[in-house]
Amino acid sequence: MSSTSILLVSCPDRKGLVAAIANFLLSYNANILHADQHQDAETGTFLMRVEWDGSQFDLPPEAFEAAFTPVASEFNMSWKLSHSGIKPRMAIFVSRYDHCLADLLYRYQAGELHCEIPIIISNHADTRWLAEAYRIPFQHIPVHRDSKQEAEATQLAILRRHHVDFIVLARYMQVLSADFIRHYPNRIINIHHSFLPAFHGARPYHRAYERGVKLIGATSHYVTEVLDDGPIIEQDVVRISHRDDLDDLIRRGGDLEKIVLSRAVRLHIEHRVLLYANKTVVFD
Amino acid sequence: MSSTSILLVSCPDRKGLVAAIANFLLSYNANILHADQHQDAETGTFLMRVEWDGSQFDLPPEAFEAAFTPVASEFNMSWKLSHSGIKPRMAIFVSRYDHCLADLLYRYQAGELHCEIPIIISNHADTRWLAEAYRIPFQHIPVHRDSKQEAEATQLAILRRHHVDFIVLARYMQVLSADFIRHYPNRIINIHHSFLPAFHGARPYHRAYERGVKLIGATSHYVTEVLDDGPIIEQDVVRISHRDDLDDLIRRGGDLEKIVLSRAVRLHIEHRVLLYANKTVVFD
Amino acid sequence: MSSTSILLVSCPDRKGLVAAIANFLLSYNANILHADQHQDAETGTFLMRVEWDGSQFDLPPEAFEAAFTPVASEFNMSWKLSHSGIKPRMAIFVSRYDHCLADLLYRYQAGELHCEIPIIISNHADTRWLAEAYRIPFQHIPVHRDSKQEAEATQLAILRRHHVDFIVLARYMQVLSADFIRHYPNRIINIHHSFLPAFHGARPYHRAYERGVKLIGATSHYVTEVLDDGPIIEQDVVRISHRDDLDDLIRRGGDLEKIVLSRAVRLHIEHRVLLYANKTVVFD
Amino acid sequence: MSSTSILLVSCPDRKGLVAAIANFLLSYNANILHADQHQDAETGTFLMRVEWDGSQFDLPPEAFEAAFTPVASEFNMSWKLSHSGIKPRMAIFVSRYDHCLADLLYRYQAGELHCEIPIIISNHADTRWLAEAYRIPFQHIPVHRDSKQEAEATQLAILRRHHVDFIVLARYMQVLSADFIRHYPNRIINIHHSFLPAFHGARPYHRAYERGVKLIGATSHYVTEVLDDGPIIEQDVVRISHRDDLDDLIRRGGDLEKIVLSRAVRLHIEHRVLLYANKTVVFD
Repeated sequence: MSSTSILLVSCPDRKGLVAAIANFLLSYNANILHADQHQDAETGTFLMRVEWDGSQFDLPPEAFEAAFTPVASEFNMSWKLSHSGIKPRMAIFVSRYDHCLADLLYRYQAGELHCEIPIIISNHADTRWLAEAYRIPFQHIPVHRDSKQEAEATQLAILRRHHVDFIVLARYMQVLSADFIRHYPNRIINIHHSFLPAFHGARPYHRAYERGVKLIGATSHYVTEVLDDGPIIEQDVVRISHRDDLDDLIRRGGDLEKIVLSRAVRLHIEHRVLLYANKTVVFD
Repeated sequence: MSSTSILLVSCPDRKGLVAAIANFLLSYNANILHADQHQDAETGTFLMRVEWDGSQFDLPPEAFEAAFTPVASEFNMSWKLSHSGIKPRMAIFVSRYDHCLADLLYRYQAGELHCEIPIIISNHADTRWLAEAYRIPFQHIPVHRDSKQEAEATQLAILRRHHVDFIVLARYMQVLSADFIRHYPNRIINIHHSFLPAFHGARPYHRAYERGVKLIGATSHYVTEVLDDGPIIEQDVVRISHRDDLDDLIRRGGDLEKIVLSRAVRLHIEHRVLLYANKTVVFD
Repeated sequence: MSSTSILLVSCPDRKGLVAAIANFLLSYNANILHADQHQDAETGTFLMRVEWDGSQFDLPPEAFEAAFTPVASEFNMSWKLSHSGIKPRMAIFVSRYDHCLADLLYRYQAGELHCEIPIIISNHADTRWLAEAYRIPFQHIPVHRDSKQEAEATQLAILRRHHVDFIVLARYMQVLSADFIRHYPNRIINIHHSFLPAFHGARPYHRAYERGVKLIGATSHYVTEVLDDGPIIEQDVVRISHRDDLDDLIRRGGDLEKIVLSRAVRLHIEHRVLLYANKTVVFD
Repeated sequence: MSSTSILLVSCPDRKGLVAAIANFLLSYNANILHADQHQDAETGTFLMRVEWDGSQFDLPPEAFEAAFTPVASEFNMSWKLSHSGIKPRMAIFVSRYDHCLADLLYRYQAGELHCEIPIIISNHADTRWLAEAYRIPFQHIPVHRDSKQEAEATQLAILRRHHVDFIVLARYMQVLSADFIRHYPNRIINIHHSFLPAFHGARPYHRAYERGVKLIGATSHYVTEVLDDGPIIEQDVVRISHRDDLDDLIRRGGDLEKIVLSRAVRLHIEHRVLLYANKTVVFD
């Protein structure tokens, strides 16, 4: 398929919004492929994702902003334009558990994730072999209690050097500092191994086992300064029984983590996630 | 909430469609509440559902057709306008199994289904008590092999007298004739107790049990002349194990049937189902 | 099917347990229909449910205790014998939301729940019509902040008079006192409208909506003195999206509540739930 | 954990079976870890899986048969003894789609699958890189219409040379001959990319897309001479919508295939699958 353009819009809801956007795109000969919109009645917010065929579009990317600004201003829009031909650059952070990393790398190699992976960063060396099998640069940056600030500075330098657009925490077991997070606002995706908000924080499988729940879950969310509290992108659960011991929970949960994280990453890459009120609208 | 208007449109996909519809609605001061659209690339079909607040709309219902026809003609649209204030009239057909009937009646009484139920028709008298508990007229029309044509004539007369808009077969165990179906094209909703196309036809739970499947399903679809082959509105499944005998399958399947049928009925009542190519687009 | 007997056993795990129970039952000519057991490695607990055909069993119910006590003592067993022919007596407590009540009553009438329902108790009169449709005695006992103790005394008297074995809280919106709960330890079943431990306490759907979760849940558990903290019998979830507003969550959650509560009630009635370490083993 | 022994038994149901097996194991000092049994009322079949700690068991493996035969004969048992310490040898057959292969290899490397993988056989060379990354021998055996018999002879020779116990068809796109299958009865595991029996045979995703189903599925089963008709080990489904085109179905179905196949393989390896009446009992 040829390249497409994607416009994400959010603004106060008002009459005439759809017509204004549709007329603007039509005036430059856009052939709309997909359009999704949502009106949140409670907050009076309008959110839209529209995707069109770039090949016949009369407006060159570099001229878009100037042309669209009058429309955007009239309706007080926040907006973002992306092009499917430009692959976002994703860094992966990982610790010792490697199942999410292996899954992301396989999907990347199989062409399921339309992104570049310029760098994998880990506080351990255990997963280097996987990075090498898929020919992705790997950087081992140990993190100790008293060297965390320094480690984060090194990480940030590497991310900048590789022009990283967003970060995926593929079971990265270190808590990032508020300062680090501010460098990538709503651009760090985490996988938490519980059905949030249940069992936020440490050792969720152990606590799920003790509580005797009948389903375990996994949650992928954007990282904010409050631990495990950021906007949720995707969640799922799987049924367990008394026949599953703690090791079974960890193994079965691992499968969920892979699926949930990879879905969230794909949704982010394809510009399907809009944020408002600390939650997401996902146009899938 | 005040009354809303809903427009369903399907037509060959073409540039300018969204703008044309949005501009038309804006010109009569419509405040759009929800808009969903879908482009089917394979068949080149455009499908849309748009819902707006009726209270500020400047075009009275009786003038809509004349005003909209120029737009519809230009794009070769099939379209249908509905108003949430006008409740569709639903007849329920039932035999002896009463779980789907009980579920629909409870939901109707609880205000979950925005419809009228002027009549329940059954080939048995067993469910009369339920009709009476919910104060819905009940008509017992026995159907025998050699009286089927006559019975259908009686049924059709009753449906006409009650101005019925669509029919729900809530585990009605008689096959309707092609002639009967032609009176209510795409307006008869059936629940089949399997995950179609698996186990179409008779005794699906028995066959599922024999085949040793690990999940059983239920499917709600519009009735066409080919048995169990009409457009699917909704499906779902539930996991079973060897610990479930045939009675368990029937009991657990019954729960699925209720959920799946009631979802399909609600989707139909709220004008969320569009048809093309013997399948459905469901804007839920 | 003829009547069956069910033995529930829990004790410290030890060699020879299965043989001892199997030999005991065989010596009285029991024809075992189902047997399930579980060894919890962490706590060293053995749990078993065994069901046999009562018709050929040589030991009359009144002689069971004397005959089984030597085996039970040797292995330090807690045990309970039940007979499928003796229906447990279930009281239903309800407030204004009636969907769970309607569901339980339908299932009871359809023969899905092998119990008696001698009484429905409510702090409101709204559901009296449902009780009357299914011909179950209904008692309206208003509960106000300063009359709670008195109301509970009245409730307890009614429960005693009706020889109630266990209580189902079918969306009963009053918190029961610790004193009340002590009268029915592990014999009060509640439905909480969230995936516990997430959103325990009040208004879970509102909080789920605000948090932006992608699945909502329902949990059925035994009531203990700590709110929403008792042993979980059954849970399930359903997927939601941004297209679901708060009313949709409540409606879709209501369907879950019905399914989850009725499953838990059936499991309890069929003596399939064993308790240990504030959680349950469910032999389904 | 130390090594365990697993006994699978199936026979006509009869009084005294559980006692006989429990007494036999107790007489040699077995410490039972798990025991599951099932009585199929319809066919009068008794099926059991019992697992015990091998470290304290007084009967050496080579003496088991002689000691157990009297019990087995009395009850006309089919039985099979396995030891968790002896890893079964699994061959993987694959064609061009590599997602199931990559998933199995990752799980094998991560220690999730307690087996050996002595050989991967493919009719294409595309997946050689994956075999090499995980250091598993890879054999490319092209299969053409007129060379199939010869190719199968080569495959069988390789399987024999590697002492293969069972074969996994990880999206192997060739139909195996009846003669080949007879060499590995109930020891060839296939993944079919539909919810069988729906869409058996070729191109299931295309047909699912055309039929407009609302869920797609995957099924893992033992291979028999009748295509896609063998005993089902595991199945699962995932919800789709009109927003999913054929490519989405294939991608989302691929995730299901991986999960379902790997679950089936693990169940087989852990001796949790019993066969009767062309279906399976899975003691999970």
